Amino acid sequence: VDCSDFNITVVGLGVIGGSYATAIQKRLKPKNLWGVDTNKDTLLFAEKTGIIHRGYTFAEEPLRKSDFVFICIYPRATVKFIRENMNHFKPGAVVADTAGIKGAIIKELYDVSRDDVDFIGGHPMAGREGRGLEFASDEIFRESGCYITPTSKNKPANIRVLKNILTKIGFKNIIEIDPAVHDDMIAFTSHLPHIIATALMLNPMIKKESLCIGGSFRDATRVARINPDLWVELLLDNGDNALRHLEEFEADVLGIKNAILHKDENRLRKLLLKACKRKEELSLNADN
Amino acid sequence: VDCSDFNITVVGLGVIGGSYATAIQKRLKPKNLWGVDTNKDTLLFAEKTGIIHRGYTFAEEPLRKSDFVFICIYPRATVKFIRENMNHFKPGAVVADTAGIKGAIIKELYDVSRDDVDFIGGHPMAGREGRGLEFASDEIFRESGCYITPTSKNKPANIRVLKNILTKIGFKNIIEIDPAVHDDMIAFTSHLPHIIATALMLNPMIKKESLCIGGSFRDATRVARINPDLWVELLLDNGDNALRHLEEFEADVLGIKNAILHKDENRLRKLLLKACKRKEELSLNADN
Repeated sequence: VDCSDFNITVVGLGVIGGSYATAIQKRLKPKNLWGVDTNKDTLLFAEKTGIIHRGYTFAEEPLRKSDFVFICIYPRATVKFIRENMNHFKPGAVVADTAGIKGAIIKELYDVSRDDVDFIGGHPMAGREGRGLEFASDEIFRESGCYITPTSKNKPANIRVLKNILTKIGFKNIIEIDPAVHDDMIAFTSHLPHIIATALMLNPMIKKESLCIGGSFRDATRVARINPDLWVELLLDNGDNALRHLEEFEADVLGIKNAILHKDENRLRKLLLKACKRKEELSLNADN
Repeated sequence: VDCSDFNITVVGLGVIGGSYATAIQKRLKPKNLWGVDTNKDTLLFAEKTGIIHRGYTFAEEPLRKSDFVFICIYPRATVKFIRENMNHFKPGAVVADTAGIKGAIIKELYDVSRDDVDFIGGHPMAGREGRGLEFASDEIFRESGCYITPTSKNKPANIRVLKNILTKIGFKNIIEIDPAVHDDMIAFTSHLPHIIATALMLNPMIKKESLCIGGSFRDATRVARINPDLWVELLLDNGDNALRHLEEFEADVLGIKNAILHKDENRLRKLLLKACKRKEELSLNADN
């Protein structure tokens, strides 16, 4: 797809938005790349460094002329932003978001969405342990997949263009998925390990001197370095899925616990072996 | 410490033993470095590549002349080996093990140990996701700590020499610790994340197509690639500690679960923030 005639706006120049903007500017060379953010210093920095052509604290002006809009802010803010700016989008515009949960957002937006604006949900599986534009880099997409959650409401041509743009941005793979299935999966592959990492760090053992932390603990708790405001939204607004997967996890832990409790060597070895084999298979497939 | 007059034997040339031997040969240049293993091909390979001077399938001959012995085999095999070879050690020899649990081993050995052989427990916090001499490398110690668990039975001079050797081998830090405290800590920092990684991999969700696994899940399950035979021993023989820490972990998970269940934003944010701050502090201290 040729984007040289496109005006593109990125809303929210944090790690994700800043990385999107950097990659779009470098690899798509749109006619105009505009940034919307509440922080003037961020916009000024993004203009100076050429990440965007121009920054705005109010979205109306760039939105009226934008063919593509990428919304890179928190889930609840995403819904709020689109609701409040519904009348500002250019007729025919494609609006893609990046929020980590999809079902609730898409359901809510479809109730208020204009027929001549195509809202397509997306969730880049990328990020960094740091906040703000200074941590943005188009490198973060290279080893990452991106979910998109188009529905029958979306125009096939727009879905194709979006996939094309995401591929050019640098994502390793683009996966089309139903919004509800996405939220179920993400509760397992992302929300669950974040809850586990948090729970591990809540144990007072952490405070003990002479605690020598090996790689297993370090890796299991890496994502405890969380953005609490964002994650409160993700965990609460995907609460049912998160709780269900937590309970499944607890059941699997119980299986191991019982094998230890009853000193059941064969049972324990079987469980370890099963998990080990699955991890080996997963590692063979596409860097999991 | 000058080791040029020492005869050193490494028992078990797997990842740990092979890495110990490689580092000892390179950095301590002992008079003789002998290897004991049940696999003749392994010994032959270790001789050819210069990792050891000579290999033995029977331990008696090298043990009779060894000033230092490093035992790098499974926990239960360690106890069995020392018991069976008790009469073969050279008077005055220092015998150091590397098993991942210490309390039970040390207790059992002190009952049978000769007065003229100094057994000092140790646990290198290093390893690789692969088995056997081919995965051995002296690089694995560089970012790792090593616990040692000397007691009042050990001669201070021997403890000093062991620490010196471990430092030369390349460990980042050597931590002296009580054997029981070691087992409690290790249940938290190592056994718990291994159980969690295993439990996560037992969920059938893993088998789903279009499952796009992000960094958080990949890291949390890295150590599911386990050595089942070794880990059955570690988890069962440190079962009380493992179960206690599992229950503490479950209590912390329950706290998060309840906050999600009751949609208690403030409570959830507090928990996430507490864990996040602790992780940040830990990351500042010595690469945790």
